[in-house]
Amino acid sequence: MAGNSFGEIFRITTFGESHGEGVGVVIDGCPPMISLKTNDFVHDMARRRPGKRLSDTPRREEDKVEILSGVFEGQTTGAPITLFIRNKDVDSSPYEILRTLFRPGHADYAYYKKYGHFDFRGGGRSSARETAARVAAGVVAAGVLASLEIRICAFTLEFGGIRAVNINPDLIDDDPYYCPDPAASAQMEEAAKMARKEGDSLGGIVEIHVDGCPPGLGEPVFDKLEAELAKAIMSVGAVKGIEVGAGFEAARLRGSQNNDPLAPDGFRTNRAGGILGGVSNGDQIILRAAVKPIPSISREQDTIDREGHGAKIKLKGRHDVSAIPRINPVLEAMVRITLADHYLRLKVMRQFVDPTV
Amino acid sequence: MAGNSFGEIFRITTFGESHGEGVGVVIDGCPPMISLKTNDFVHDMARRRPGKRLSDTPRREEDKVEILSGVFEGQTTGAPITLFIRNKDVDSSPYEILRTLFRPGHADYAYYKKYGHFDFRGGGRSSARETAARVAAGVVAAGVLASLEIRICAFTLEFGGIRAVNINPDLIDDDPYYCPDPAASAQMEEAAKMARKEGDSLGGIVEIHVDGCPPGLGEPVFDKLEAELAKAIMSVGAVKGIEVGAGFEAARLRGSQNNDPLAPDGFRTNRAGGILGGVSNGDQIILRAAVKPIPSISREQDTIDREGHGAKIKLKGRHDVSAIPRINPVLEAMVRITLADHYLRLKVMRQFVDPTV
Amino acid sequence: MAGNSFGEIFRITTFGESHGEGVGVVIDGCPPMISLKTNDFVHDMARRRPGKRLSDTPRREEDKVEILSGVFEGQTTGAPITLFIRNKDVDSSPYEILRTLFRPGHADYAYYKKYGHFDFRGGGRSSARETAARVAAGVVAAGVLASLEIRICAFTLEFGGIRAVNINPDLIDDDPYYCPDPAASAQMEEAAKMARKEGDSLGGIVEIHVDGCPPGLGEPVFDKLEAELAKAIMSVGAVKGIEVGAGFEAARLRGSQNNDPLAPDGFRTNRAGGILGGVSNGDQIILRAAVKPIPSISREQDTIDREGHGAKIKLKGRHDVSAIPRINPVLEAMVRITLADHYLRLKVMRQFVDPTV
Amino acid sequence: MAGNSFGEIFRITTFGESHGEGVGVVIDGCPPMISLKTNDFVHDMARRRPGKRLSDTPRREEDKVEILSGVFEGQTTGAPITLFIRNKDVDSSPYEILRTLFRPGHADYAYYKKYGHFDFRGGGRSSARETAARVAAGVVAAGVLASLEIRICAFTLEFGGIRAVNINPDLIDDDPYYCPDPAASAQMEEAAKMARKEGDSLGGIVEIHVDGCPPGLGEPVFDKLEAELAKAIMSVGAVKGIEVGAGFEAARLRGSQNNDPLAPDGFRTNRAGGILGGVSNGDQIILRAAVKPIPSISREQDTIDREGHGAKIKLKGRHDVSAIPRINPVLEAMVRITLADHYLRLKVMRQFVDPTV
Repeated sequence: MAGNSFGEIFRITTFGESHGEGVGVVIDGCPPMISLKTNDFVHDMARRRPGKRLSDTPRREEDKVEILSGVFEGQTTGAPITLFIRNKDVDSSPYEILRTLFRPGHADYAYYKKYGHFDFRGGGRSSARETAARVAAGVVAAGVLASLEIRICAFTLEFGGIRAVNINPDLIDDDPYYCPDPAASAQMEEAAKMARKEGDSLGGIVEIHVDGCPPGLGEPVFDKLEAELAKAIMSVGAVKGIEVGAGFEAARLRGSQNNDPLAPDGFRTNRAGGILGGVSNGDQIILRAAVKPIPSISREQDTIDREGHGAKIKLKGRHDVSAIPRINPVLEAMVRITLADHYLRLKVMRQFVDPTV
Repeated sequence: MAGNSFGEIFRITTFGESHGEGVGVVIDGCPPMISLKTNDFVHDMARRRPGKRLSDTPRREEDKVEILSGVFEGQTTGAPITLFIRNKDVDSSPYEILRTLFRPGHADYAYYKKYGHFDFRGGGRSSARETAARVAAGVVAAGVLASLEIRICAFTLEFGGIRAVNINPDLIDDDPYYCPDPAASAQMEEAAKMARKEGDSLGGIVEIHVDGCPPGLGEPVFDKLEAELAKAIMSVGAVKGIEVGAGFEAARLRGSQNNDPLAPDGFRTNRAGGILGGVSNGDQIILRAAVKPIPSISREQDTIDREGHGAKIKLKGRHDVSAIPRINPVLEAMVRITLADHYLRLKVMRQFVDPTV
Repeated sequence: MAGNSFGEIFRITTFGESHGEGVGVVIDGCPPMISLKTNDFVHDMARRRPGKRLSDTPRREEDKVEILSGVFEGQTTGAPITLFIRNKDVDSSPYEILRTLFRPGHADYAYYKKYGHFDFRGGGRSSARETAARVAAGVVAAGVLASLEIRICAFTLEFGGIRAVNINPDLIDDDPYYCPDPAASAQMEEAAKMARKEGDSLGGIVEIHVDGCPPGLGEPVFDKLEAELAKAIMSVGAVKGIEVGAGFEAARLRGSQNNDPLAPDGFRTNRAGGILGGVSNGDQIILRAAVKPIPSISREQDTIDREGHGAKIKLKGRHDVSAIPRINPVLEAMVRITLADHYLRLKVMRQFVDPTV
Repeated sequence: MAGNSFGEIFRITTFGESHGEGVGVVIDGCPPMISLKTNDFVHDMARRRPGKRLSDTPRREEDKVEILSGVFEGQTTGAPITLFIRNKDVDSSPYEILRTLFRPGHADYAYYKKYGHFDFRGGGRSSARETAARVAAGVVAAGVLASLEIRICAFTLEFGGIRAVNINPDLIDDDPYYCPDPAASAQMEEAAKMARKEGDSLGGIVEIHVDGCPPGLGEPVFDKLEAELAKAIMSVGAVKGIEVGAGFEAARLRGSQNNDPLAPDGFRTNRAGGILGGVSNGDQIILRAAVKPIPSISREQDTIDREGHGAKIKLKGRHDVSAIPRINPVLEAMVRITLADHYLRLKVMRQFVDPTV
């Protein structure tokens, strides 16, 4: 009801605030007998961590994931899995100003109108720090999907107006912007440098590819796979748009151009982005997410205080120049969590279906 | 679990197939004492009905909504409300071909892989006919929102590549394409005529404005208002992309451009599209949905049969040239249902909050 | 939220009022490929139907189940299954008195306080007529469980103070009171005759045995199998108590008496009633439900009107003398629905467990 | 799906194992602006703590509740509230025997059949230690109900076969067995002493009274208040039976005896136990729970090992002689949580109802 849970069978509930004790997640509905160790989280948590790029905030957190429940002798037990990431390095004093002023582009004003009372320190519940719990949950989701050999990759298609042109998937992991085009990546670094200098921030577009997804995931009508993925991805703070396959381009195509013809060896094109009628068709799933520039900028901005009087606000502290590329592993995690849930849902639906089909 | 329900408190479950007995919806969680009569459905059902435009299929259905439960002496009682729209005019013979062949761009292939067995006649559960139940549910949702004087309008921003330029909201209701620009509308009619002649279909972009929405709707984290609306709208078959406010354009803006400054008399700009941190901020909510060309075209297409052999398919019968504008009232209904659910959710959250805030 | 749904994966939502169009149920989450025909409902609906016994109301309804959706060519499709039982023989005039007076022992007073407005004719939503939809849903649940050869039997252990002593399971189906002891059954008939003559009603105890249930059904903590069954059974209007295995007797035993020792060939005793730690252990599941005398009696009773003034009420029409034995197939249906849901839930949990265990 | 959550709006999810890091609970859907401090938990946690009675295990835990999220400056914020109770004093060595043997009366056998793999140390997830999280959640629920002045009291009606006769509610809190009859309490102490000496355990009956509950709580059909309370209470490990109002006695009454007549100043009797048609009627709610003797006894018992071979088991360590009275505050917590959820659900349902009714 209060929106902190996601998934029907593989169900995650995140909790925690940016400047409270920490952030965490309870995963209920994870089957037993999946290998899970503290070490499994290190790689993904590191990818989300700041500090590798000029565009990152210098706040350094170890982001160590503690397993509080649900794992015994290195395996899941079927009991709820609780993961907790303790907050460190939390100086809340720069946020005292939020006791009176609303930051433009942030949740502050809307939260105040809704709750009357909220933990504003560091953005509290609306902080991107909450996504650390999602990345941790994504690691468990990966365990559920392990036997399927699904590969999920969220790369930077566009950043600060610069678009990747030559897509080389092999370069993504090592690129500081998770960009598949080194030339574009170098320009992105320049754009980031400039924006930081000017006390401003940048947005971009992240494209997500899912390879190896079997047909059948997604439920018709409201829980169509693209609807679920749209929700999963739009639930990440900075995302303001989402499209699947040809997306907004499809609006300009004719049916004869947009339909993907079937052939004995597969679909001839993939404008559907791997989903038909809300159900995966076995082809590559293609998504694109529009990421807005992060609202925390060093420039002075117009705002109002809690009584509605006009005011100026100038945020202290240093912030990321962009949600990209730290958002990329978060989007991957959300896709992973969505697929894990739908994979288990598919298993139920196929109980009595001829398994040779 | 099987994806036929939407909403947490105001919860709808649709059922029924295109060529079965009919389509319907059960609404559970609707409070009592809301006026509801059979007549209330006539206007919205008529707007979704085919036949007004050259682009429409000539299939004529009365789409009369029967109230099977939950209403007594013209008012809701708090019991589940069941609405049923009986199918008429159902000749399933043109669909016999689907017993062997998959239609490109349709759910057929994916459904077959998922279920092994499905009601293919008229698209069955994946048919746009299912959306008649959503429109009916939207009428009940309007009753929940009645005291708020929220106005929801889905208009055609683009159709077959033609974009509305001069937006006059007053013209939308009477325009055959729900287009706010009469000159563009005339060109849309031409484009539809041409596409029909060529046995092809068209897509477009629908923009949705919500005026009068109070602040506070939407739950942080996973049930952010934009995430819920994205799911609601992407769950309508033909939609392949969704954006809120500046949307994909925001990806190219800087923070200083994208942040909406607050002033004593409201926000100075509205790039956020009326939602901050997942919660409505009281400003106009702005959404845009990319609608693909409908996959049913008269041209011959390449496909395969259930055994995987190559084949040609040529669909009989006449179909709409585009999901637009019949999809517009469906999208309005989905927005209305989402807002009704979140309005009731907000009521819970504000139980103990100072009501003067 | 409004309590008309039951089950997590195999999820039923009932709707309809006693004197409205009819009662029905939508079942979402039923896997495809289960045989289902209109005929399948006849036997169970007949068992719930009145008219076979002296204790029954003479109102005769055919209780024909219409399948409105979700079945194609005699098999479930995975789409929501809607079953509808049209009301006939509905003379609402005897209920006009409920516009002002509350019937003692009925929902009237509490509904009025809750809703302000409700369909009082025939009890509306609180009528036992709603259970016809449950019995219909139970038939679909039986299809889900078909491969397990589970046998569920609800028999009359006690009626009007008369207790079955010599339990012969083979006699239950043909006995007019679903009583396994013919001598007791004859006395029950006498008691029913007497109560009817005196314008009064009777209660009793129904015992339910489930044979052939595999181990593993039920989820620890809140969805323990006994907790779910308790809810399922207590949700049937007339039930005021429920116990599993030794039940209230267990409160007087010592651990050494109540623990069921394990032996290589199974449990030596079954005081647990087939459930340990909330999970079925493979032994017979044993439940007992206390059924109160139905509140509709012909005698004059003290009550109040909607304004709170004292009044006398004397109900017209004829009513069942007892909810037993018509409630028995309803309780069986609720057990079946609960087990079907938990069977599908177990399948998810055992995805990665060594199948030889 | 996996059964670790309870409630629809006020929704709790417990996690943690007896001998893991600790046990905890996430509460989602708690409205903001409710006062909550670490100190608020002390009283209730102390009541559940062992050590006050001869019948208790000597294991001593501080059971300090940490607030990990959702509270800011001493008030709830509307964000998920996470409460954590760290385990101390955990010597798991006595449980090594469970790697091979199943304890009679415990979850071990059923868990093994279900999961193949589970944390058996101290009973893991099936341990009564999990209920510490419920008691903590109950404190938050009390905050939701604060304005209603509802009083919930679970007292010991029967223990080891000894029944309280003279009920003096004022004595309950201070009695070591939460028994309202001092003479009976003294006998209970004797019975406990005897059972402990003989290495055995005892059960009993707990009666629960709810005073001050307003009418209208509970949803018709499946979420009837008695059904929800039955589930809530049966979900506590040791409970094997539950009845409301006259309960099993009602099965022997006639309608004319069991119906509670209404009078201008309230109900004349209360055989319904405060609930009509699944909805609270404003009268005292009365429940009784049958508590089995705890299965951990020092005597040697027959059992089998994981391979199915016969064996003897003799449990080491000292255990409580009975779940009573430590279970009493747990049952109170479950009632409180259920009422808090239904109170918020009622608020939704009454949105548009004339508030003077």
